[in-house]
Amino acid sequence: MKQIDLSLYAITDENLIKPENLAEAVEQAISGGATVIQYRAKNKNSRQMYQEATVIKKVCDKYGIPLIVNDRVDIAIAVNADGVHVGQEDLDVEVVRRIIGFDRILGLSTKNLEQVKKANSLPVDYIGFGSIFPTTTKENAKVSGIETLKEVIKLSIQPVVAIGGINHKNVIEVLETGCKNVAVVSAIFGSDDIYSATKKLKAVIEKGR
Amino acid sequence: MKQIDLSLYAITDENLIKPENLAEAVEQAISGGATVIQYRAKNKNSRQMYQEATVIKKVCDKYGIPLIVNDRVDIAIAVNADGVHVGQEDLDVEVVRRIIGFDRILGLSTKNLEQVKKANSLPVDYIGFGSIFPTTTKENAKVSGIETLKEVIKLSIQPVVAIGGINHKNVIEVLETGCKNVAVVSAIFGSDDIYSATKKLKAVIEKGR
Ligand code: NI
Repeated sequence: MKQIDLSLYAITDENLIKPENLAEAVEQAISGGATVIQYRAKNKNSRQMYQEATVIKKVCDKYGIPLIVNDRVDIAIAVNADGVHVGQEDLDVEVVRRIIGFDRILGLSTKNLEQVKKANSLPVDYIGFGSIFPTTTKENAKVSGIETLKEVIKLSIQPVVAIGGINHKNVIEVLETGCKNVAVVSAIFGSDDIYSATKKLKAVIEKGR
Repeated sequence: MKQIDLSLYAITDENLIKPENLAEAVEQAISGGATVIQYRAKNKNSRQMYQEATVIKKVCDKYGIPLIVNDRVDIAIAVNADGVHVGQEDLDVEVVRRIIGFDRILGLSTKNLEQVKKANSLPVDYIGFGSIFPTTTKENAKVSGIETLKEVIKLSIQPVVAIGGINHKNVIEVLETGCKNVAVVSAIFGSDDIYSATKKLKAVIEKGR
């Protein structure tokens, strides 16, 4: 499977970033230390998604940072993204893998130990796990907590990216479980100074990892 | 480009057909004379779309009728559909063609003469044109009328599929313009007896074509 640094995984949010600020926001996140960008949009048409993903891809390419597209395999292929991330309500990873081949990264969201266990035998490159803490980004996200994350780290044969309500204050708790990768949305894109917010988070991760 | 009989082009509608009735509805439409099925869904997640498109594909394969997926190139590839149909808010046809290659059908919705003219130099296999009549299926659909359709038929080098508010009563007006293909949604899937509604429409088309 493809090598990828998942340690500071930044996910875009259409409610936090205005379309006209997307390139700048992603550039700040990357400059601050984001190691991978995920483009996620749930309320845009295909044309808008393609345009936005194209903009982000250009920034990612400039810095040699991989771009992963959430859910939409067609958009990922259309902009030549480095990978696709799917959730439990998206296409099956076997189906996605058949379409994208083995040159692109494939990630899967998991929410409980059963899904983590199942993912051990699926053709994925990493799993997301969460929500670790309560979050405002995803409504009704089930909180799994640090104790469950410890079990996930033991159970999973895939790299694990912790997600959900993680910020520079609580990220140390995540890293103490042995988890080496964190995904953030509002902790950086909800900040007025995305660069500094990312840099602050990055510093804690590099120290605690 | 691929050969396809577009004469009675049936488009599914998630507001008219319950998910559990989808296979039966499509089978009735095909038995009644539909020559091509388009799967269209705007309010479903990728997993649901894949499942529904898979169900429809099975019915289409049973009768040797092509399946075209609206907008979602990834779903089309995932279920091995015969083609993709995109609108002006979807991916560019050049981008879609690059992804699907030339073995799959590619259709494009057009709404005015300018778009029809432009489509003459695009890598599409057919164009949709409408709305011909007022329709309840698409909110705020602009009505173009029979007179404009006449011009479209003269202007387009692509096969034209007329769409929008067409039923067994007014379809003769459409055919009299020289247009040989009609797309319908509610005229058949809005009927209590989809088979009979399709058959009635088919009879007029075969006579008037
Ligand atoms: Ni800048």
